[in-house]
Amino acid sequence: MDHDSWIKNHFESYSKSHGFIFTPKEEIQNRLSRLREQMNRKGIESLLVAQKMDFFYLSGTTQDGLLFLPLEGDPLVLVKREIGRARVESPLPVVRSLPFLSRLPELIREHSDKIPEIMGLEMDVLPVKNYFRLISLFPEIRFVDASEIIKRVRAVKSPFEITLMRKAGQIGQQVYGRGREFLKEGMTEIAFAGLLESEAKSFGHEGLLRVRSYNYEAYTWHVLSGVTGGIVSQSDSPMGGLGLSPAFPVGASEKVMKAHEPILVDFGICYHGYQVDETRMFSIGKLPKKFTDAYKACKEIHDAVLAESRPGVDCEQIFLSTIKLAENLGYSENFLGPPGLQTHFIAHGIGLELNEFPFLARGQAYPLEQGMTFALEPKIVFPGEGSVGLENTVVVAGQGCEILTPLEQEIFEV
Amino acid sequence: MDHDSWIKNHFESYSKSHGFIFTPKEEIQNRLSRLREQMNRKGIESLLVAQKMDFFYLSGTTQDGLLFLPLEGDPLVLVKREIGRARVESPLPVVRSLPFLSRLPELIREHSDKIPEIMGLEMDVLPVKNYFRLISLFPEIRFVDASEIIKRVRAVKSPFEITLMRKAGQIGQQVYGRGREFLKEGMTEIAFAGLLESEAKSFGHEGLLRVRSYNYEAYTWHVLSGVTGGIVSQSDSPMGGLGLSPAFPVGASEKVMKAHEPILVDFGICYHGYQVDETRMFSIGKLPKKFTDAYKACKEIHDAVLAESRPGVDCEQIFLSTIKLAENLGYSENFLGPPGLQTHFIAHGIGLELNEFPFLARGQAYPLEQGMTFALEPKIVFPGEGSVGLENTVVVAGQGCEILTPLEQEIFEV
Repeated sequence: MDHDSWIKNHFESYSKSHGFIFTPKEEIQNRLSRLREQMNRKGIESLLVAQKMDFFYLSGTTQDGLLFLPLEGDPLVLVKREIGRARVESPLPVVRSLPFLSRLPELIREHSDKIPEIMGLEMDVLPVKNYFRLISLFPEIRFVDASEIIKRVRAVKSPFEITLMRKAGQIGQQVYGRGREFLKEGMTEIAFAGLLESEAKSFGHEGLLRVRSYNYEAYTWHVLSGVTGGIVSQSDSPMGGLGLSPAFPVGASEKVMKAHEPILVDFGICYHGYQVDETRMFSIGKLPKKFTDAYKACKEIHDAVLAESRPGVDCEQIFLSTIKLAENLGYSENFLGPPGLQTHFIAHGIGLELNEFPFLARGQAYPLEQGMTFALEPKIVFPGEGSVGLENTVVVAGQGCEILTPLEQEIFEV
Repeated sequence: MDHDSWIKNHFESYSKSHGFIFTPKEEIQNRLSRLREQMNRKGIESLLVAQKMDFFYLSGTTQDGLLFLPLEGDPLVLVKREIGRARVESPLPVVRSLPFLSRLPELIREHSDKIPEIMGLEMDVLPVKNYFRLISLFPEIRFVDASEIIKRVRAVKSPFEITLMRKAGQIGQQVYGRGREFLKEGMTEIAFAGLLESEAKSFGHEGLLRVRSYNYEAYTWHVLSGVTGGIVSQSDSPMGGLGLSPAFPVGASEKVMKAHEPILVDFGICYHGYQVDETRMFSIGKLPKKFTDAYKACKEIHDAVLAESRPGVDCEQIFLSTIKLAENLGYSENFLGPPGLQTHFIAHGIGLELNEFPFLARGQAYPLEQGMTFALEPKIVFPGEGSVGLENTVVVAGQGCEILTPLEQEIFEV
């Protein structure tokens, strides 16, 4: 059989029968119209969207391509390789082939009445080399950074997106449940982490966690036990763990897990591109009081943030109130990292990427909005001994927050 | 205990007892001197290295930071967060803290006699926003693209690097061995892929595969069976697979694997940052002759490339000779992808990243050099039916090639 015919005749039903959910047309239209409002306000006549998750958010496909979005008129989806799949996956009306980047100006000219004067790019992630190429292709256009408006639009989730995140939360519940069955004294952190990942995949987890940042790498195998929980590393996280080598110095290590030490499992789940992040404590036998007390403090801070978070509340203020509460609870030296290396956020926005708006963090003075989602993670670090923490992913609803990660909030003692 | 004291007193022995191998000083010095030769030749007075794998290659650490490399004198390692670990991991003499990027000019001025006039950056991956920030910090400096020279230096591996890749190859052998025990009729592709990943982690695989490219994502779970082996997707690969959703439309899917269909497993292993890539065919019961014949053709092409590859031979010529051979063998329509979507490479360089020099590919007219490593992957695609292929990672030695992935080259029938 011919490949294109197979895609045309079979791909849609075949992929749906294997669990694919396509982004509805109204969903995409709603996203585009919210983004165009922002473009209009900023005087940006068109966008050229390349970053994979922005492209997916606005087109419904992640086939290798670009989206040209004029302020008015049809968007243009340009696909470098598998156009047949892109036409099924994207509800947008105009999907064309882009065999060579040099044809981009001509294709835009054919599509639009005129070449725009101002074009927005994702300058927070677009490489310099690609930027210079665009300047040479469009010498008449002024390019501006549009990453901020795209990120602001993406921060507010629709009911469709929340449904996918809720499903990811359910997968997480299954994974942690299996973890309670697997965990045994004498297992290494990395072996346990591998088993969790394997179970997660069998439940529908997509494996790759995405993060919008040059050089920042996301991974699922963040299993830290006892002393490794007190080690800091490259990531902007209260604790990094030992990792497996100087090349990957974060997350689970070859350390053998022992009884009575805190085992922190911070595992992200991805379903249809949408992520949730959650952390739970495990222990083999009873934990010393020092750690159970600190865990109770994390739970108290977690609950206080949930009680406080609703539309209109300032993100930085929420963060600052957790610092105050940690101090009152006697953990000011250990809250969110060891002294000198304490981080400055209590929650990070989450969705298609692990570091979206809003950040409940120092310097982030803007209000929460209904539909925003964030991973809330109070953590307490004891260098040389271990860490404890609790994390859930929540959505800001009309009057408060709804937890999307429905896992029990106790220490899992096995 | 205090965190900094713990790192200072315990980290080196603790990490070594958990499997860490640090990059030797002579290794780093050799890399720096090879790079400085290239800088000198191109008139680049200094480099500012930020990309994680370039930074690791030249410093020995992946702690969040930057490397300032003047043409002469000590390099300067600047670390944003965990300086204690960086000091243990890097054999370079000067490791300082970089609390804010705005202090960069001052720190460079303190370190060097003078601010260089020409500074090389990794413009193939550096985001535009970061570039503008550097321009504002260093208005007097002319920035040039140095990514090409860094990549050329990295392409030729040392004995130390080959040892790590050989170890990765041994892990791969264990993983595929376990796969032969696990594979059962009725398993989904993704469940099988998850088990392989879990086993790989238990043998020392680091999980994350790295690729130097905006928007290109690497992953290990490339298990394609029957019809999904004939589906193309976003990646520049002969076959992409179905994947799990429009957000992750590559690799293993929820498809159930059946008897007598080709099951292609393309699994990358990472050990201490160094990767090998390999592909083997599995089948549950006998495969139809169409697929075993095509596999024999892949093996013949694979062996022909190995016989031809030695220092001085042109990379594009090797690629073109495989096209000719595939045609002679009767597979011109199916070689390296379905008609219209055939890829134009037979091998990709590999090391710290999955897409390094050399590329044995169309348009890559440069000679092989001793110490270069590449993943050689002849593949044949039958749309609607499935794919077959064979892949090994090899190093170019003095007279020919040595295979670093010592796995048997037969179809694994279970």
